[in-house]
Amino acid sequence: MAEKTLGDLFFHVLQDIYYAEKKILDGLPDMAKAANREQLSDAFLRHREQTQSHVTRLEQVFELLGEKPRGKTCPAMNGILEEAKEMMKDFKGSPACDAALIAAAQAVEHYEITRYGTLRSWAQTLGMDEAVDLFGQTLDEESATDEELSRLAEQKSNPEAQEAAE
Amino acid sequence: MAEKTLGDLFFHVLQDIYYAEKKILDGLPDMAKAANREQLSDAFLRHREQTQSHVTRLEQVFELLGEKPRGKTCPAMNGILEEAKEMMKDFKGSPACDAALIAAAQAVEHYEITRYGTLRSWAQTLGMDEAVDLFGQTLDEESATDEELSRLAEQKSNPEAQEAAE
Repeated sequence: MAEKTLGDLFFHVLQDIYYAEKKILDGLPDMAKAANREQLSDAFLRHREQTQSHVTRLEQVFELLGEKPRGKTCPAMNGILEEAKEMMKDFKGSPACDAALIAAAQAVEHYEITRYGTLRSWAQTLGMDEAVDLFGQTLDEESATDEELSRLAEQKSNPEAQEAAE
Repeated sequence: MAEKTLGDLFFHVLQDIYYAEKKILDGLPDMAKAANREQLSDAFLRHREQTQSHVTRLEQVFELLGEKPRGKTCPAMNGILEEAKEMMKDFKGSPACDAALIAAAQAVEHYEITRYGTLRSWAQTLGMDEAVDLFGQTLDEESATDEELSRLAEQKSNPEAQEAAE
């Protein structure tokens, strides 16, 4: 068996996040439908458009490697989305629904943030400057989405859920 | 059916992260054993000690609520750890092993960072000052671990994996 290299690892995780992004594309419309507040629903739909461009950037990295884009089952994203579905089912229609949806979406964002951070760092070591730039763009967008969700939770969804209980 | 409140959601996620922390306690010794570099192995064992104190803090929050500590299956952490095991199996003993282990551990850290961030924000809204403080302490430690792993990857594990391939 040949020794596994950083390049092998890079390709492994690239396929993992490609699968994960496609699962997120499928999941976001349901989250948008479940939201009480239109502002949150809109944020999910905007993020879905962004996710489409993240998929495109990943396809560009596959192309840089001379490989066809293909996903590899990502048990982490499957678990995160399974948990999101459970929370949606348990809290749908309740005053705490949007706070639950935001928490679920932020778990998705953080998985992406760690994976893109890792891929960018590996691309640097591998001297893949174009990939460094592509991952960096996506990373900035994922971080901005995470911050937007935190603001929405703190300013709107959390206090609303709490007021409804008083 | 009673309307679900922010308090219900808080309790739901508290049980989720309690389960997750206990799974991490079980998983870290295997990751320490798999590491090529002693420095990484030591970092995992130190983080296991810290994880024990995170579990204790969660038990203090259960006590503040007048509840017995109990976990609730967390599909997200199960998925993240399943993926970590796969990566360990695929890369064990190879020059890229430590880079793979660090990537897996950072996925774990980021899940914890998002959950503790969310719980701290909900505790603020719920006026649970002591819980805000406990979650804040854990959050700072998780973030510091994540940064330590990034440094170790960039300075040691990534270049080593790459040099071995040249």
